[in-house]
Amino acid sequence: MSKEEKRAKFLSVFPTLVEELKSVLTGYGMAKDAVQWYEKSLDYNTPGGKLNRGLSVVDTYAVLKGAESPLSLPEKEYFKLALLGWCIELLQAYFLVADDMMDKSITRRGQPCWYRVDGVGEIAINDAFMLEGAIYVLLKKHFRDDSYYVDLLELFHDVTFQTELGQLLDLITAPEDNVDLSKFTLDKHSFIVRFKTAYYSFYLPVALAMYAAGVSDAEDLKQAHDVLIPLGEYFQIQDDYLDCFGKPEDIGKIGTDIQDNKCSWVINTALKICSPEQRKTLDEHYGRKNAESEQYCKQIFHDLKIDQIYHEYEEKIATELKAKIGKIDESRGFKSQVLTDFLGKIYKRQK
Amino acid sequence: MSKEEKRAKFLSVFPTLVEELKSVLTGYGMAKDAVQWYEKSLDYNTPGGKLNRGLSVVDTYAVLKGAESPLSLPEKEYFKLALLGWCIELLQAYFLVADDMMDKSITRRGQPCWYRVDGVGEIAINDAFMLEGAIYVLLKKHFRDDSYYVDLLELFHDVTFQTELGQLLDLITAPEDNVDLSKFTLDKHSFIVRFKTAYYSFYLPVALAMYAAGVSDAEDLKQAHDVLIPLGEYFQIQDDYLDCFGKPEDIGKIGTDIQDNKCSWVINTALKICSPEQRKTLDEHYGRKNAESEQYCKQIFHDLKIDQIYHEYEEKIATELKAKIGKIDESRGFKSQVLTDFLGKIYKRQK
Repeated sequence: MSKEEKRAKFLSVFPTLVEELKSVLTGYGMAKDAVQWYEKSLDYNTPGGKLNRGLSVVDTYAVLKGAESPLSLPEKEYFKLALLGWCIELLQAYFLVADDMMDKSITRRGQPCWYRVDGVGEIAINDAFMLEGAIYVLLKKHFRDDSYYVDLLELFHDVTFQTELGQLLDLITAPEDNVDLSKFTLDKHSFIVRFKTAYYSFYLPVALAMYAAGVSDAEDLKQAHDVLIPLGEYFQIQDDYLDCFGKPEDIGKIGTDIQDNKCSWVINTALKICSPEQRKTLDEHYGRKNAESEQYCKQIFHDLKIDQIYHEYEEKIATELKAKIGKIDESRGFKSQVLTDFLGKIYKRQK
Repeated sequence: MSKEEKRAKFLSVFPTLVEELKSVLTGYGMAKDAVQWYEKSLDYNTPGGKLNRGLSVVDTYAVLKGAESPLSLPEKEYFKLALLGWCIELLQAYFLVADDMMDKSITRRGQPCWYRVDGVGEIAINDAFMLEGAIYVLLKKHFRDDSYYVDLLELFHDVTFQTELGQLLDLITAPEDNVDLSKFTLDKHSFIVRFKTAYYSFYLPVALAMYAAGVSDAEDLKQAHDVLIPLGEYFQIQDDYLDCFGKPEDIGKIGTDIQDNKCSWVINTALKICSPEQRKTLDEHYGRKNAESEQYCKQIFHDLKIDQIYHEYEEKIATELKAKIGKIDESRGFKSQVLTDFLGKIYKRQK
């Protein structure tokens, strides 16, 4: 069954969730225009991305259950798993609406950022809150009577807080308008990407599927965690690498990390090995909003052979992760296939 | 024991909670400057208000337990209840940091709003998220093994979402920069104040204390709810009334609701009974940022005898609430005294 079919089926669940959320508001006696506002915010901000995180929940669950494909799951079972997947997409929507405001971004997923939509403005902050709120409304409605309900709640609380911690460190380490490379280190980069991205994008989907499948021994969650967090870090390092070294025709956009003063793996690696002279150039030109400065930085990254260091890192981490996956203990029902699938999607990707 | 002693004891718990939250970040390996940033946000935004909501949790619990005063509770018991109280103050801090950004406010509690503090700016959005996040970190640490843990989580989820619903309706009904009185109705006002204020300020503290005291039968929660929500509405109507008719020397500030285009009880009541001519004047002058326009509106409120209508409302609602409180069923351990105390603090207050 094709990727498109999987995606279409997953997408078909979303309108039902929106109706459920709307009926909660209607049940409270909420005015019609406010119900419509919420519906618009849900529709505008939640689907529209690649949906990898949400789809991973369903895929992982199918693997754990030994189902041929997610589409062969009984309808009710599929719905509950897809709902968990949509909860991650709602969490992501909550973060993105806020991130766009904090970064003063212009567009997101090919349309204006929500706060820039006519009439929205700062109300987007409350809309972000309500995207997060939707998660707990949906979990309460559909998982209240499941033995692992409180585990789901704690998982969302923990991962949400972890993501906010990563975002905080990123925001104060790399403000767009105040370049200070002395704040950058590879350790900080590692913390930021693990907390800001790896927890909710890699660990969360798998952990949700594990709870739902009843494969959630603390040891098994730890096995998943210990592969998925470094895998998520690898994914983000790859992203940072591609932003600078990837071909626009492959990655589908033009990288902006240098001009945006991003605390990326590339600059952090360069800072670690550069000469005092190169450092002076980077201090003067990194994070400046002009193509010439960007070119100076790119030249240094080229001279320092950052691409070679990246390829060495990629081989090393992939080997390590494969070794870890090879040692996974499947005795309690966890399956290393879950992790192999994730690694397969990421290893040597070009976009 | 004096109000000041109660307040001092409650305040003395907060630094411990801040240390606990900091140690979670430190445990994750978070950089020192980010830990300090979080500490500053917690300290700047959480205490500093009247703390009525937080104190109500401890007071209500003492009444339910038949304790002479909160200060006579065993130390560990007091700490847990005060922690629940601080969770409401954290929830309030989360809302206020965001509200100030959405309203473009200048000061809060006599100091610059958090987002206006040097270096903070839009990072305040993530800081608001992390104030909310603190609630679930603290609940997990201290209430995980209590039978009512999941009730606490759901209560916080429900009330948070309700407050956001009230805020949404308020924001789209009464944007500061676009006056449209045709959107205002007393029904909308009632929804806004119940959802935006009454749930978290009145129902939440009592419900938290009820769960902790083991007096949490659904019927008892309903008894509390059915008095506290209209009581909270009465409190807000009083607030709206005092903003317009209260003496600045009593209320400690100069009312700004008219100039700020607030969807207040006063304007909604006036709209219901005014003549077409008065309506025209209100359409032209309400929500305008000048003293002359404000005076035109005030004159109409005076001509319509809104103060008299308010006093009639106050007598009516107080009588109704007293009657409801008189019928409270105490057979399962709930105590009407809890509600009498709340009403006593509010009835005929001048500030």
